[in-house]
Amino acid sequence: MVHSSNKQIVLLSHPTGFPIAGEHLGVHTTQLNTILEEDEILLRNLFVSVDPYLRGRMNDDKEAVIPGFEIGKPFSSGGVSEVIQSRNPRFTVGAIVVGEAGWEEYTHVTAAASDGFNVIEGARESKVPLSSYIGVLGFPGLTGYGSLKAFGQLKKGETIYISAASGAVGQLVGQLARLQGLRVIGSAGSDDKVEYLLKELKFDAAFNYKKGDILENLRSHAPNGLDIYFDSVGGRQLEAALEVLNLYGRVIACGHISVYNGQESHGIRNLYQVIGKRITIRGILVNDFVQDEFANFQRDVGQHLLNGDIIYREDIAEGLENGAEAFVGMLKGANFGKAVIKIADL
Amino acid sequence: MVHSSNKQIVLLSHPTGFPIAGEHLGVHTTQLNTILEEDEILLRNLFVSVDPYLRGRMNDDKEAVIPGFEIGKPFSSGGVSEVIQSRNPRFTVGAIVVGEAGWEEYTHVTAAASDGFNVIEGARESKVPLSSYIGVLGFPGLTGYGSLKAFGQLKKGETIYISAASGAVGQLVGQLARLQGLRVIGSAGSDDKVEYLLKELKFDAAFNYKKGDILENLRSHAPNGLDIYFDSVGGRQLEAALEVLNLYGRVIACGHISVYNGQESHGIRNLYQVIGKRITIRGILVNDFVQDEFANFQRDVGQHLLNGDIIYREDIAEGLENGAEAFVGMLKGANFGKAVIKIADL
Repeated sequence: MVHSSNKQIVLLSHPTGFPIAGEHLGVHTTQLNTILEEDEILLRNLFVSVDPYLRGRMNDDKEAVIPGFEIGKPFSSGGVSEVIQSRNPRFTVGAIVVGEAGWEEYTHVTAAASDGFNVIEGARESKVPLSSYIGVLGFPGLTGYGSLKAFGQLKKGETIYISAASGAVGQLVGQLARLQGLRVIGSAGSDDKVEYLLKELKFDAAFNYKKGDILENLRSHAPNGLDIYFDSVGGRQLEAALEVLNLYGRVIACGHISVYNGQESHGIRNLYQVIGKRITIRGILVNDFVQDEFANFQRDVGQHLLNGDIIYREDIAEGLENGAEAFVGMLKGANFGKAVIKIADL
Repeated sequence: MVHSSNKQIVLLSHPTGFPIAGEHLGVHTTQLNTILEEDEILLRNLFVSVDPYLRGRMNDDKEAVIPGFEIGKPFSSGGVSEVIQSRNPRFTVGAIVVGEAGWEEYTHVTAAASDGFNVIEGARESKVPLSSYIGVLGFPGLTGYGSLKAFGQLKKGETIYISAASGAVGQLVGQLARLQGLRVIGSAGSDDKVEYLLKELKFDAAFNYKKGDILENLRSHAPNGLDIYFDSVGGRQLEAALEVLNLYGRVIACGHISVYNGQESHGIRNLYQVIGKRITIRGILVNDFVQDEFANFQRDVGQHLLNGDIIYREDIAEGLENGAEAFVGMLKGANFGKAVIKIADL
């Protein structure tokens, strides 16, 4: 089963603007070391997650909170993988695991790194697609579930606004809020995404942020103002939401994709709004929710998926050959649903 | 005692930029109605508070959280006053009260408005100046005390940065943080204010924000980064603080004086910092602390004042004739210490 060659998507150079496939990242084949030391495992990767925050890891920034990628080395992110060799008693050959996998056919996991992998019990009989474990049942899902629970203070009848609402996190946030009786407003970057939000996800209102004025759209769709803004975008979206937020409004700041690609950031000119309205803006990373909430999250959202209360759309690129383009496309909003690269079949 | 004429500082017109004494606000003499209905009181005003937020009340903004002033009507703010007539059983003639007083010699307080006044017990024997009750022992002090307690999560050894640090709120915030074992850094707009912070208030570090780069100053004075930024200014100060804040840093946003006078606001370009560092920005208004904290605050800070652990500098303008200039000067940072207008002696 194990090949000595290993196809990878690697960082070629540090981009300043939008990365270009072939220039800043690209496919590369290297040799695989299949000889395991004690507690090491060898993985055959099935799916890896394509996330906005990975753009930051392409920068040459030694002080970044999340360590960057090295030139010539593969990208890595949440992945679903099959254990094909093991010298670690926690993992049997054939187990399906989730953890930080390389964007490559095979990942040789060190003893230290093996702590970050967990077995998906019953994976081969799973009623949900295995890619769910890096999406709606993985870190993107936990980002939404954990931050709403910790900081959203959701109350029935309140109004929540979600930007990037058809994306990996937004889809789940909107449906969780709807299930708790909130009025849910979403925006996305195309008319078909807006239609998906309204018809499939049953949002109360949705609009295409590229058409018309964001502030006017918010004012018309949220006549009683906003209580929560779930922000994956920053910039003009955040500025507009601050205008429409109510007293004691909450902003959950989960991403700031409007600046990730080195476009000049739109300066926020109305932060004084937070004072009179006693708004809280809270930056969040999923890491903070893993210990206390991961089990609750998988139980609750898993049940909703089985009930059909929550649905989840993925945009799957087939093969590492198409992975670099899928990543660049995701940064530009070309994906429709959670972006994933499928590396191999189980 | 009661005169039928009443000198006032009134709103003359709505300013767009910095207000001009004589054009946007000025002295005006009107007739006083001294005939009280049931539960009304008549006050002789001694001191009124000169606060940055009052600039917002000069705007023509019907949706403002804090209602604006009316043209031709007096300014009002926290005041210390003597009750000279009373038809309200809560107030005896001769009592000294604190509450929202007009910027005028006498205020005729309606029954409804009388609920907002409280007697200062033992005021005539007070060991602190009566003006303290609208400063370090009043709403400016409660703003600092209440917000640090509710949202600062102060821990010994942490570093706090305070802008407008020699002002009404900043002086107290810095000394309370120092007493709790934090490293305290302040900035102010003149060298003599900086000297006051270092020599009188015993801050660990202080700098003149008009000299040199704010970010470089912060980096050199906070080698271990900032844990808390107490923000009365917004704009470039906030932007610089976001760069230097540590993981789980807190911003207490108490004022945004950099935009109050209609100067084009400096857009904040680095709000993405809140995500990776899980920063919380929390807007606060003193109103939220009155019910739960006012008694604790007066007890604790009163004790510190008597002990000499905390000192407090006021900048007192003598007479309503000088009040408009004192207000405009405060907006430009000309005051040194908490700005107050003294209307009359007790």
